[in-house]
Amino acid sequence: MSFADQARRTLDILALTPGWQALKTLRSDCDDETVAAILEEAAFFAEGVLAPLNTVGDRIGASVVDGRVRTPDGFADAFRRYGEAGWLGMDVADHLGGQALPLTLHAACAPLFERACVALMMAAGSTRAAAHLLTEAADEAVAGEWVPKLASGEWAATICISEPDAGSDVGRLRTRAKRQSDQWLVCGQKIWISFGDHDMAGRIGHCLLARTDDAPGTRGISLFLVPNHIDGVANGITLERIEGKMGLHGSPTCALRFENARGILIGQEGRGLPQLFTMIELMRLLTGCQGLGLASAAIDIAEAYAADRKQGGRPDQPPVPINSHPDVKRQLWEMRVATEVVRAAVLEIATAMDLAKLKQDEELKHFIGWMLPLIKNFGADLGFTVASGAMQVLGGAGYTRDWPLEQYLRDARIMTIYEGTTGMQALDLLTRRLWRDDGKGLSVFLKRARAEVASAGEDKAAQDVLALLGEFEQLSGRMKAMQSDADAALWRADAYMRAVWAAASAWMALRLGLREAVPFYTAQFTYQSLRCR
Amino acid sequence: MSFADQARRTLDILALTPGWQALKTLRSDCDDETVAAILEEAAFFAEGVLAPLNTVGDRIGASVVDGRVRTPDGFADAFRRYGEAGWLGMDVADHLGGQALPLTLHAACAPLFERACVALMMAAGSTRAAAHLLTEAADEAVAGEWVPKLASGEWAATICISEPDAGSDVGRLRTRAKRQSDQWLVCGQKIWISFGDHDMAGRIGHCLLARTDDAPGTRGISLFLVPNHIDGVANGITLERIEGKMGLHGSPTCALRFENARGILIGQEGRGLPQLFTMIELMRLLTGCQGLGLASAAIDIAEAYAADRKQGGRPDQPPVPINSHPDVKRQLWEMRVATEVVRAAVLEIATAMDLAKLKQDEELKHFIGWMLPLIKNFGADLGFTVASGAMQVLGGAGYTRDWPLEQYLRDARIMTIYEGTTGMQALDLLTRRLWRDDGKGLSVFLKRARAEVASAGEDKAAQDVLALLGEFEQLSGRMKAMQSDADAALWRADAYMRAVWAAASAWMALRLGLREAVPFYTAQFTYQSLRCR
Repeated sequence: MSFADQARRTLDILALTPGWQALKTLRSDCDDETVAAILEEAAFFAEGVLAPLNTVGDRIGASVVDGRVRTPDGFADAFRRYGEAGWLGMDVADHLGGQALPLTLHAACAPLFERACVALMMAAGSTRAAAHLLTEAADEAVAGEWVPKLASGEWAATICISEPDAGSDVGRLRTRAKRQSDQWLVCGQKIWISFGDHDMAGRIGHCLLARTDDAPGTRGISLFLVPNHIDGVANGITLERIEGKMGLHGSPTCALRFENARGILIGQEGRGLPQLFTMIELMRLLTGCQGLGLASAAIDIAEAYAADRKQGGRPDQPPVPINSHPDVKRQLWEMRVATEVVRAAVLEIATAMDLAKLKQDEELKHFIGWMLPLIKNFGADLGFTVASGAMQVLGGAGYTRDWPLEQYLRDARIMTIYEGTTGMQALDLLTRRLWRDDGKGLSVFLKRARAEVASAGEDKAAQDVLALLGEFEQLSGRMKAMQSDADAALWRADAYMRAVWAAASAWMALRLGLREAVPFYTAQFTYQSLRCR
Repeated sequence: MSFADQARRTLDILALTPGWQALKTLRSDCDDETVAAILEEAAFFAEGVLAPLNTVGDRIGASVVDGRVRTPDGFADAFRRYGEAGWLGMDVADHLGGQALPLTLHAACAPLFERACVALMMAAGSTRAAAHLLTEAADEAVAGEWVPKLASGEWAATICISEPDAGSDVGRLRTRAKRQSDQWLVCGQKIWISFGDHDMAGRIGHCLLARTDDAPGTRGISLFLVPNHIDGVANGITLERIEGKMGLHGSPTCALRFENARGILIGQEGRGLPQLFTMIELMRLLTGCQGLGLASAAIDIAEAYAADRKQGGRPDQPPVPINSHPDVKRQLWEMRVATEVVRAAVLEIATAMDLAKLKQDEELKHFIGWMLPLIKNFGADLGFTVASGAMQVLGGAGYTRDWPLEQYLRDARIMTIYEGTTGMQALDLLTRRLWRDDGKGLSVFLKRARAEVASAGEDKAAQDVLALLGEFEQLSGRMKAMQSDADAALWRADAYMRAVWAAASAWMALRLGLREAVPFYTAQFTYQSLRCR
C-alpha cells in the first residue's frame, strides 16, 4: 500500500505547511475532506492504471515504425484515461476545460503519478506545460481551440527549444520562422523533444522557439505553435530519430526536422523566451516532483526489504532483520529524511506559487525565484541518490532487474540534466537571484525561515537552525561581495547552491519535527561553506 | 590515445611512489625500461583486443543456450589471447606457469584492462584469484595440475561463496560437503557466481565454500575445488539461471546447483574462510582497479568533450568551449583530482603488498589491512561517481547510448556492492582494524604519511596536511573510545571511513603535487568528522 502511504505522508506534510493553511482560507473548495479524497484517488489511479506500465515501458520502450513513434503497449490507453479523469487539466483554467485547482494539489499528486510511471508522465508533463503556456500567451481563439483539447488529453503537445548547437545556450538557436503572406513557415531542427511524436493523441502541437530576427542572443526569438497536421494535412515535420537512452525508454526523445511547417505566432514577436517564464517555473517544480516520486518509491522498497531480509547477528542465533544493523538503519534514516524534506519543500514552494498568484505578492515571487532552482536540482538529485542508496541496501539483488530500483536509477539520472542542468541552476541562483535581484529572494527566505523557526520553540534544534541561518546570511554576504571576481564566484556557485539547500533543509526538517536531522544539515552547510572559501 | 595516456600517468605516479623505489632495489627485473614497455604493451592490448568488445558485450550480453552460458561474440577469443599473452598469470608464481612479476605491475596494468572491457575481465579476475588461492592453499599435485592451466587461460575458475541466505553473512551458508569413502560430495546452491559457466575455456574449476561440520558460524566451513567435469564426465553442477542486471551484461552472474558434485578439499578442513584471506585482499585491490579504470575512461571523455563542445560566451561572439566556464572547469578538476588520487593510492598499497611479502614486514601488513577497505570502497565509488559526473558534463548527450558513459555508470554501480559492500568495508575498518588490531594499521598510516608530508617541505599545503593528520588522529581516538557504545560507533562507521579516506587523499594529493586539492580534502574531512559526532 505504498501509494496510499505516500498520499498520507503528503497530507500530513500539507497540514504542517503554513502556506497551505493560508491558501485554504482563500480557496473554500480546498477543504480537508476534498483534498484527502483527491489524493486518495490519485494514489488509486497511479497504482492501478499507471504503475503496471512502468516495467513494460522500460523493457519494450518506444520505437519508430514507418517514420512514426510507436509507444509501448498500454501507454495510449493510460494517457487517455489520465486525461479523461481530469488529472491532466487539474490546475488548468476552468474556462479552458481545466479544473482550476491550486497548483499545490497538482504538486501533491504529481509525485504519485511520477512514481508510478515517470516515462509516460513525460507526455502529460509537456502537454500540461503547453496548456499553461497557451493559456497565458496565446490569443483567445488559439487558446480556446487548443487548451481544452490538451487538458483532456485528446491532443498532446511538446516544448521544442534545444538544437544541436543550442542547448543550455538557447540564444544560439538557428531554427527560423519566415512570414509568407499571412502565415509563418518554420525551418530547422529541434532535438531532445520528449514525446515529439507518438500515437497517443489525435494531434500534436509543438510549442517551438524560432528566430524571426537576426538580433544576437535571445532577442530575435519568437514562440510558435506548430501542429503536426492542419486540416488533416501533414505539416512538414519529419521525425529524424529517437535517442537511445540509458533510461526513460518509454518516453521517446525525438529529433524533429521542420521544413516550411506552418506555425502560429504565440504572443509577441521577439518575446519568445520571456513568454516561457511561467512554463519553465512549472517544469522546474515538476522535475522536483519527478525525483521525489522515484525517491518515495525507492525508500519504501529499501525499508520494506530491510525489515524482511535477515542477515547477521550472533552466529548461534537466527539471523536478524538487516534494519537492526546500525549502518543500515543510518542509510535508511538518511534517505527517509532527505525524501521527506524534499516533500515539504515542494509543498512549501507550490503553496507560495499559488499564494503569489492569488495575492499578487511581490515578496513571494522573489521567494519562488530563489527556491525553484533548489527544488529542481535537489528534487532531481534525490531521485537518483535514493534510487542508488536503496540499491545499496538491497545489495546484489537491487542490481538485478528483479527489482525496479535499477530502472529508477536509470530513469532518474537525466533529471539533473534536463530542464536546466545543475550548473545552470547554480548559475541562476547566484547570478540572477543573489546578484541581479540583489538577494531579494534570499531576504524573504531568511525572514520566513526565521519567523517559523523562532515560533518553533527554544529547544536546541531550533537554536541550531537559527545559528545556521545566521551563518548562511554571512556566507551569502561573502558570495555577494565576490561579484567583483566573477570567475572565482562562479567556481563556487555549486557549493553555494548546496549550502543554500542545507539551510533550507534544516528549516524543513524542523517543520517536520525531525530535530535529530538538524546536525546532519548543519554539517552539510559547514562543508559547503568551506568549499565556498 | 587515451590508453597510452593512462599508461603514462601510471608510470609518472609510480615514479613518485616511495614504495616503488624501495621495490625496485629488491627486484632487479623491474627496471624503468622494462616496466614502461609492459605498461605500453598493456595499453596496446587493452585498446586493440579488449576495448572493441565493450559495447557488444553490453548490447548482446551473455545468454543461456541449452543450459549453458553463451558469452558475447569475441569474448572467448579475447580471453584466450589475454591468457596466451601472459596477462592472466603475470603475478602468478613462475614455477606454476606465471611470470612472478610484482603485484604492483598487475595493479598498474589492471586499470587499463578494466577500462577496456570490465565485463570480460570479470572472468580473468576470478580465474586469477583462484590461481593465487590454489597456489597458496592447495597441495602440490592440485596446484601443479590447475594453476598453470589457469594462468594460461586454458582453464578458468570461479569463487563460489554466497547463497540465498548467506551474503554478507557468510557464516550462514548451508551448502554441504560429505565425505564418501575417499571423496567429497558437494550439495547446495551458490549464487552471484561471476562467469559460473561459460564457453571460453576447456574446464571450469569452482573454488567453493561448503560446510563440513555443524559448528555455527564460519568454523565448520571448508574450501573445495569442484571442477565442472572430471575425466570428461559432467560433475553434477546445474546452471539454474543467470541474473538480469543493470550492467555488466557481458559477465554472466550465475546461480549454480551442486548435486553430489565431486570436490577436492583444499587446505585444511574447517579452515575454508581464513584460507581465502589473500584472495580476498587481491580482489579488494582489483575492485579498486576496476573503478579506477572506468573513472579514467570517463574523465578522459569529459575532458575531451568539454574542450570540443562550444556553448555560451557573449551572444555577439562565437560560442566558447565549455571547459572555459568556471563551473565546468571545477567539475573536471574535481573528477581529475579524485581519479589521480585513487591511482596513487592503488600504487601505494600494491607496492606495500609486494614489500610486505618480500620483507615479511608486520608493520606493512597492518598498513595493508588498514588501507584495503578504503581502496576497495573508494575505487569502486570513484568509477560510479566519475561516470555520473562525466555524464553531467556531456549533458543530454551523455545520457544517450551514443557515448559509453551510461554503460560505465551501469557497470560501475555494482562495485560498491560486490566483494563486500560499503557497509562491510566500514565495519572492517572500524571493528577489526581500529578496535581489534588496536589501531596498529592506523599508527603505521600516520607514521608513513607524516614522514612523507614532513619531507615535502614547509609550505602551507604540507602544513595543512600535517594539521589534518593531527585532527584525524584525535578523531580516531574518539572512535576508539566509542567501542564501549558499539551501536553509536557503528552508526558512524561510514562517516569515519570517509574521514580516513579524506586524510589519505590529502596525503596522496600532496604526493602528486596537487597542492590546491588539499583544502578540498580538509573540507571533506571536517564534514565527515562532524558526521562522527
